[in-house]
Amino acid sequence: MDTKELAARLAKGDRRAVAKAITLVENDGAGSSGLLRAIGPRLGHAFVVGVTGPPGTGKSSLVDRLTESYRKKGLKVGIVAIDPTSPITGGALLGDRVRMVDHTMDEGVYIRSMASRGWAGGLSGAVADVIQLLDAAGMDVVMVETVGIGQSDTDVVRVAHAVMVVLMPGLGDDVQASKAGLMEIGDVYVVNKADLPGADDMVVDLLAMARDFKGRNPSVLKVSAAKREGIDKVVDVLERIRGRFLSSPSEAGDAIRLKGIRGMITELARRRVLVDFEARADSRVEGLAEDVAKHGLTIDEAANSLLGSKGARVRPRKRTV
Amino acid sequence: MDTKELAARLAKGDRRAVAKAITLVENDGAGSSGLLRAIGPRLGHAFVVGVTGPPGTGKSSLVDRLTESYRKKGLKVGIVAIDPTSPITGGALLGDRVRMVDHTMDEGVYIRSMASRGWAGGLSGAVADVIQLLDAAGMDVVMVETVGIGQSDTDVVRVAHAVMVVLMPGLGDDVQASKAGLMEIGDVYVVNKADLPGADDMVVDLLAMARDFKGRNPSVLKVSAAKREGIDKVVDVLERIRGRFLSSPSEAGDAIRLKGIRGMITELARRRVLVDFEARADSRVEGLAEDVAKHGLTIDEAANSLLGSKGARVRPRKRTV
Repeated sequence: MDTKELAARLAKGDRRAVAKAITLVENDGAGSSGLLRAIGPRLGHAFVVGVTGPPGTGKSSLVDRLTESYRKKGLKVGIVAIDPTSPITGGALLGDRVRMVDHTMDEGVYIRSMASRGWAGGLSGAVADVIQLLDAAGMDVVMVETVGIGQSDTDVVRVAHAVMVVLMPGLGDDVQASKAGLMEIGDVYVVNKADLPGADDMVVDLLAMARDFKGRNPSVLKVSAAKREGIDKVVDVLERIRGRFLSSPSEAGDAIRLKGIRGMITELARRRVLVDFEARADSRVEGLAEDVAKHGLTIDEAANSLLGSKGARVRPRKRTV
Repeated sequence: MDTKELAARLAKGDRRAVAKAITLVENDGAGSSGLLRAIGPRLGHAFVVGVTGPPGTGKSSLVDRLTESYRKKGLKVGIVAIDPTSPITGGALLGDRVRMVDHTMDEGVYIRSMASRGWAGGLSGAVADVIQLLDAAGMDVVMVETVGIGQSDTDVVRVAHAVMVVLMPGLGDDVQASKAGLMEIGDVYVVNKADLPGADDMVVDLLAMARDFKGRNPSVLKVSAAKREGIDKVVDVLERIRGRFLSSPSEAGDAIRLKGIRGMITELARRRVLVDFEARADSRVEGLAEDVAKHGLTIDEAANSLLGSKGARVRPRKRTV
């Protein structure tokens, strides 16, 4: 199948074409740039929701419930689940998560697990590309769900049109301490497992903090994904933001749309910078560490030497048209 | 106080000099490179323990207990607590954490909170420098404690001589899924809150996974920081690794030592690369996003354009001798 045919099938929402296209961009295979160029004019329909928050708060169950609710409205949903990479196989650990099996027979739902890099995570380099493919395949909403530990949680904030932060009562001091930081990133705060003690206090707390952030007006909602309570309200809030997004051209719509585009550009470029840096650093840091250990070079000087090395200019990815 | 005098006072373990020196490198102030050069020859004594793991597992309490145990042995302990940055003040949220107040009157303990960058975190750029200052001030052990969310957890793995991963029973599916990834990074696994149900199962699980990692032999220990149970055993294990570290020159000692140096060089350089990239990206991404939204540029092309821009070469930090 050539790039044009693949793009055409993708545009019809052909599931096998979607799978094939994702594999192509994940491997950065021949034709991947061409495919992304071919679908370019079709993009801008899918509304991207980043789902993040600490581990154990029930993000996956919530994404499942939201998907049910979106499907009832007749919307097509793409789910990108970022999994920690297995250090043994190098592949995603959970595969297509067991909990999501309810949706796998539904033609209106496309689920893809992607491996993050190591425990550290970070979105797989291809997430921004996969979002574009799901957009081209006609998804109305794409939810990108992180595992809640590591860099992927940050990165998803960049590429999303709306960010949903999932919390639960009783998360302990560490999360309490992070809450102010969390207030910077979310458009919707969901307190899941709302039947646990402390849920109401948490909502009150979050609302108070939200008020301190001038110019932002995030929603705070209490849900129980397990009991299917409060789910439709979350979708209502997200749908309001999607409504603004779809209203483009308009000031509010353009702002959301451009934020997502800026995030995807930056995310792709930043990842290439880091991959490039790490490839260069790996080969030279050994010798510099020896110089520090034995010959009185300071760590500060060694870091500068690493930066000043030849090839410091990052080269764009090669085109394969 | 000039750089030489500051370095001399630092070498005597003068607490006010430590505070002053840390502030200097945090602000990258005039003389900071000179100070780091002046202390260079004295470095290599402090053993750096990275403390990481999901939020709510009780890392801070455990660090407190370990400090007590180290102090009983007469060792000097530095603690660097990475706090999420307050979005309002830009400073660390917790300050010197309340829980640690027991140690503040103890001359053998130095505690410093450092702000990470945003919720995303990442070690403050100066952590590698602060470790060097605490080393120069005669600390035997420096524990760097992360908040358990975000990039700081990865970064601390790089700069530490030994990595302690703190877990607890009942962390939920997300952490279960991350466990294989976690096995890559830890030298010591501590199951805290060991009186909770599931602690023994978690230890058995971790031991089984540890066996699958050929060439590594991490310890798995059950503790209760709250009840002060099992703490000395953790210190014993860390002391064994510190013993190897101190045995340098020796194969095992040099390996640990060089790993830390490599990590600090890479961490400093990587952070400068990212800061530089983000400064450049910020000014150009707006226009590129407009080109994507309105003029048919693809996101892939825009990312390449961002990388190919003038000034892509990263410049070393200016010397201030």
